[in-house]
Amino acid sequence: MKIKIAMIGFGNVGQGITRILHAERQTLLIDHGFDFEIVGIFGRSKGSVLAAEKGTDTSQVLKSFDSQGDLLALDGADSELTAMDIIERSGADILLEMSPTDLETGQPAIDYIKAAFKQNVHVVTCNKGPVALAMHELLELAEEKELQFLFEGSVMAGSPVINLATQNLAGAGITSFKGILNGTTNFILTRMKQGADYQAALAEAKDLGYAEADPTNDVEGYDAAAKGVILSNLLTGAETTLNDVACTGISHLTIEDIESAREKGQIIKVLVEADLCEAMPEISVGPVHLPLDDPLAAINGAMNAITFETKILGPVTISGPGAGREETGFAMLADMLQIHKMNG
Amino acid sequence: MKIKIAMIGFGNVGQGITRILHAERQTLLIDHGFDFEIVGIFGRSKGSVLAAEKGTDTSQVLKSFDSQGDLLALDGADSELTAMDIIERSGADILLEMSPTDLETGQPAIDYIKAAFKQNVHVVTCNKGPVALAMHELLELAEEKELQFLFEGSVMAGSPVINLATQNLAGAGITSFKGILNGTTNFILTRMKQGADYQAALAEAKDLGYAEADPTNDVEGYDAAAKGVILSNLLTGAETTLNDVACTGISHLTIEDIESAREKGQIIKVLVEADLCEAMPEISVGPVHLPLDDPLAAINGAMNAITFETKILGPVTISGPGAGREETGFAMLADMLQIHKMNG
Repeated sequence: MKIKIAMIGFGNVGQGITRILHAERQTLLIDHGFDFEIVGIFGRSKGSVLAAEKGTDTSQVLKSFDSQGDLLALDGADSELTAMDIIERSGADILLEMSPTDLETGQPAIDYIKAAFKQNVHVVTCNKGPVALAMHELLELAEEKELQFLFEGSVMAGSPVINLATQNLAGAGITSFKGILNGTTNFILTRMKQGADYQAALAEAKDLGYAEADPTNDVEGYDAAAKGVILSNLLTGAETTLNDVACTGISHLTIEDIESAREKGQIIKVLVEADLCEAMPEISVGPVHLPLDDPLAAINGAMNAITFETKILGPVTISGPGAGREETGFAMLADMLQIHKMNG
Repeated sequence: MKIKIAMIGFGNVGQGITRILHAERQTLLIDHGFDFEIVGIFGRSKGSVLAAEKGTDTSQVLKSFDSQGDLLALDGADSELTAMDIIERSGADILLEMSPTDLETGQPAIDYIKAAFKQNVHVVTCNKGPVALAMHELLELAEEKELQFLFEGSVMAGSPVINLATQNLAGAGITSFKGILNGTTNFILTRMKQGADYQAALAEAKDLGYAEADPTNDVEGYDAAAKGVILSNLLTGAETTLNDVACTGISHLTIEDIESAREKGQIIKVLVEADLCEAMPEISVGPVHLPLDDPLAAINGAMNAITFETKILGPVTISGPGAGREETGFAMLADMLQIHKMNG
C-alpha cells in the first residue's frame, strides 16, 4: 500500500526531500518496502496542490516546479488552498511539517502539528520552533493517538544526532554535551581565523546563503540555544525554554581575540554546552576557548559537531552537515522510514 | 520472562558486561522490559558454571570472582565444563561469544557460533575473527533459523559505528570510509608526536595495557585491517578477506617522519581506507599524512574515529572509545537490547 505524504512548505527542504524521494524511489521500495504518493503540498509562494483522490507523483511535482517555478501546473493545484486544507483534506498518513521557524511562538507549526494529530496523521518536522517550545506536549498528543512525532532534522540536519543520543547511546548514560550546532557562526569564526574581520566574514556568510538577511538568530546564539533546548529536554524530560539559556553572541569578537587564543594554543568556537545531571538542565551558548586537540577544534566552516559525555563510553563525538536542503531532506526521509518500520 | 544469557569467555569483556548488567538491572527492566539470568559461563582459566535449571545472578557471579578470582564458588561451577557444554546444555536464549581473537582461522569462535545457531540461540560477539572471516556464512545460518547475529563490539567497542553505518546512514549512500580503528598505533603515534621514539612509545603502550606482549596484529595493521574488512563486507555484501588488504605497519616510522609532516602542516595517522564503489571494495591500512583540519587529525591517544563519505550528507564522522572492558561490554548490551526489541 502506498504511504500518503502531505507537505507543509515547499522551500529548500521541501524541494530537497522531493528530489531525494524521486531519486531513491526504487531503492526505497526494494530495500524498505516503502512505496509512496504525494497527496498534498502547501507551498506558500509557490502554489498548493490537493491530490487526495489519486495522489500525485514526484516526477509531476518536479516537472511543474522546474519548468515554471511553482506547483500550479499540477492536477489539483489551487493557489487559494490553505495549509489547514492540506492537513485536513488530503487523507495523508504522514505530514512533513516544514513551515518557517518562529522561536518565540512556535507558530504556525504547533497548530499545524496538532491539527495533523487530530486527523490521525504522523508528523515529521525539521522545524526547531515547535520542538523547542512544545516538545513534550506534542509527544504526549501523539502518544495518546499512537502516532509518531519525529524531528531528527531539527538538530544538525541529516546527521543522525537525535537517533544517536536517544537510541544508540541511551544506555551509556549521557551526563552532558557540548556542540558546534550553528553553521553560520562556525563559518564566520573559521573565516576570522583566516584573517577576515567580523563584518567581512558575516557579509561573506550572507553571500553564500549561510546567514539570513537578519542574522540575529545565528550570531546572538538563539538558533544554537534552540537546538540545545531540544536535545536537553529530549534527553531528560525537562521543560527548559530558550529563556533558561545563557546566550552570548559573537558580534563583539575581534581578530585580536582569535589571535590571542591562537597564541595560547587554543581556538575560539561557539559552543552549546548542557549539563544534564541536575533536575533542570543547565544550558549555555557562547564563544569558548578550546584546546586544539579537542575533536570540536577541527570542525571548520559550516560543519556541525557534538560531543556527548557518557558514563560508560566517555566522550562520543559525531560531526556532519548542519544544514542544507538535501541534507535536511534526508533527516525527514530517515524519520519516515522509521515510522514505516514501526507501523509496517 | 527472563532472558537466559550464556557467556563464552570471562576475561576483560566478560567481566565488563557482567558489571554493566549488574549495575543497570533496574534500569534495563524499567526502561526496556529487559529481565535476565545467567545460565552458563565458560571461563577458560577462571572456571566455568552451568546453571541451566535455576539460573544464576550477576551478584553471585561477581561475589565469587571478586572474592577468589574465579567462578568456582558458584552453584553449578565445574572446571571440567567445555565451551560446547555451555552452548549445548545451558538452554540460553542469547550467547555472548567472547573467546580470544584468531584472525587466521576465526576459531574456535566460528564453531561456537554455529553450535549456538543449531541450538536456536541468538549470538552477540565482539570477536573480530569470526566476523572478518565468515560474516556472510554466519548471517545466512542465523537467518535460516530466524536468529540474530550481531557484532557491534567488533569495531570501535561500544561506539555505535555499525549501527550508524547500517541503520542511520544506510539511505545516505556510503561510498567510502576512512578511520583510525586501532587505538594502540594511534597511542604510539600520539606519543611520538610528543617526542618519544617508536620503541619507547611501544613500551609505554605495553605498560598501559594498550599493546599485547606480541604487538604484531596492532603495529603491522592486521587488527585495523580486520575492522576494515568487517565494515566493507557488511556495507557491500562482498567477501573480501584480510589477504585483500594492502597493509603497511608503523615500525619503520621515525621522529623525523613525524617532524617532517608537522613542518608541512600535516599529521601522520594510521588509517583504514576503503573505497566501496567497485564490486570488490578496495581496502588499505597504513600511515597517512592528514591535513590538520581533518576531523581525524584531532583524534589522540587510544581514541578511535571513522569518517563515512556519503552521497547525500557528505562526510559524517564519529569518534569514541576503541577498546576497554566496559566500553566493549556496552556494545554487547546494546546488541542484546536490539535482539530483545526485535523478539519482544
